Amino acid sequence: MSEPDNQAFDQGQHGHLVIVGGHEDRESSKEILSRFVQLAGGEAAVIAVITAASRVPDTMWERYDTVFRELGARDIVHVALPDRATANDAEQAARVRGCSGIWMTGGDQKRLLAMIGGTLLDEAMHGALKESGACIGGTSAGASAMCGHMLADGKADLLPEKGSVSLGAGLGFVQRVVIDQHFSERHRLARLLSIVAQNPYLLGIGIDEDTALVVERGVGIEVIGAGSVTVVDGRHVVSNVADIAAGGTPQMIDVRLHLLPSGSSFALPEEAGQQNQLQRATGAGDMATAAPPAPPALADFVRIVTKRNPRS
Amino acid sequence: MSEPDNQAFDQGQHGHLVIVGGHEDRESSKEILSRFVQLAGGEAAVIAVITAASRVPDTMWERYDTVFRELGARDIVHVALPDRATANDAEQAARVRGCSGIWMTGGDQKRLLAMIGGTLLDEAMHGALKESGACIGGTSAGASAMCGHMLADGKADLLPEKGSVSLGAGLGFVQRVVIDQHFSERHRLARLLSIVAQNPYLLGIGIDEDTALVVERGVGIEVIGAGSVTVVDGRHVVSNVADIAAGGTPQMIDVRLHLLPSGSSFALPEEAGQQNQLQRATGAGDMATAAPPAPPALADFVRIVTKRNPRS
Repeated sequence: MSEPDNQAFDQGQHGHLVIVGGHEDRESSKEILSRFVQLAGGEAAVIAVITAASRVPDTMWERYDTVFRELGARDIVHVALPDRATANDAEQAARVRGCSGIWMTGGDQKRLLAMIGGTLLDEAMHGALKESGACIGGTSAGASAMCGHMLADGKADLLPEKGSVSLGAGLGFVQRVVIDQHFSERHRLARLLSIVAQNPYLLGIGIDEDTALVVERGVGIEVIGAGSVTVVDGRHVVSNVADIAAGGTPQMIDVRLHLLPSGSSFALPEEAGQQNQLQRATGAGDMATAAPPAPPALADFVRIVTKRNPRS
Repeated sequence: MSEPDNQAFDQGQHGHLVIVGGHEDRESSKEILSRFVQLAGGEAAVIAVITAASRVPDTMWERYDTVFRELGARDIVHVALPDRATANDAEQAARVRGCSGIWMTGGDQKRLLAMIGGTLLDEAMHGALKESGACIGGTSAGASAMCGHMLADGKADLLPEKGSVSLGAGLGFVQRVVIDQHFSERHRLARLLSIVAQNPYLLGIGIDEDTALVVERGVGIEVIGAGSVTVVDGRHVVSNVADIAAGGTPQMIDVRLHLLPSGSSFALPEEAGQQNQLQRATGAGDMATAAPPAPPALADFVRIVTKRNPRS
């Protein structure tokens, strides 16, 4: 997989990802949704709500239309997707391409991808992120759908289990990671380790409920909300996973685990001999100006998750 | 804390620890209890059962007396401890000193230590391990009690929590570790991380139910039973734990985690320039002759957990 280096953007439009572990607060502080609206432009935001993951899309639309309005957004559109053909509708795709914020609700990420993967709508979302620096947000299924290798199905209750969890092709706003949600609440470390054992190329990201990993591409990351983000780095692992039978528990030696509670923020470390152009160019706004550079053990994760990729 | 190097033992009597995560099978295969009896000498074993952790000591005694007899042991004695004075009874201590196997039941490890910590009985157990190469086994509370820094109290449900878990002084058959039990079943990683965050000197060991970490001192380790042993090494961690308020979730970057399912076995790596005298001297018997040397990331753990200490 070839990946271009992070490049400087015009006008500080890096694009943001707001990756939410489900059950984000919509009643009291609304911290996460408020940040999403703010990153999408606040009162000037033009927001698309994609409900295709859900079997009750109208309920989802009403829920987020209400809360985004409460948070000051005025231009909000429901991307209703009764079928895959609609996701290839050029007019609707063009509307989404023009949005400054795109929100994906919960539901089932397989359903979402079956509906929009590879369509004009998919292209439009990547275009909005890449060319216009839009903010892409997603919660629960909408969070899992953001990576290239999407956690599709399966569980591992108490211990990792070979072959128990399947991957699918996700939207690919971020590559080389796999995202799980409702992480601490549903005790999903064993499930994430199941994937990482067999796919050490992927860094595992587990996001708690009412918690978001906010990514400013090319700049840095921040964790907001009530819980934590857990990162599982299996690249150094010594394992017997290739040799054991399906259903067995793999031996895993030297998993690197990072626990990033709400309030954690890290800037992309400056490469030796060069300054971080993005930070210097943009100056104001996000976490990047205040955040410390990621310590060495976390630096690769920050590089990977803030990286642009061929499509976006 | 000064620690002597592992020394060669006479007659291959290294001493074993059988550290069990609770709910070991007593009905069908009895794999773990069978191993304990075997390491204690099989039909020739002289076994003491210490029930002081439990509030129903007679029930516990009957339970283990029955199963140890079923497994071939013939000389089994109940170390009944109605009070602390009894734990200082010289005659009883001398009997325990002569045992080849000492078993500690479940219950409450604080109760166990309050009863026997620092008594003649405690001395006798260390003597049996150190001088006679006895096998010390313990399940649940009896497992937690084995280390020098004993997990005493407290919980952390979903995420690590500063100050939520307290340590006490344990029996100290193994130093520089902290042992938790019922580990995967009760989702205790957050609790173990709570300790390791504040005590990175201690390696965390989480043992699943019906699972044992078998330690042959100076030689190697083996995991037997139904589940896994999880090792949490926080020695490289970058954390803010010193700066956050009690109850807060510490940031933890670069926790090293090892998952050792049943069937895992590792020999103490040979030090550069010298052979492992113990392995060579003993030849027969345990896991050591067949086990591969621990890979570098796990080597320190194996060194620490197989090490003799000043008392035993």
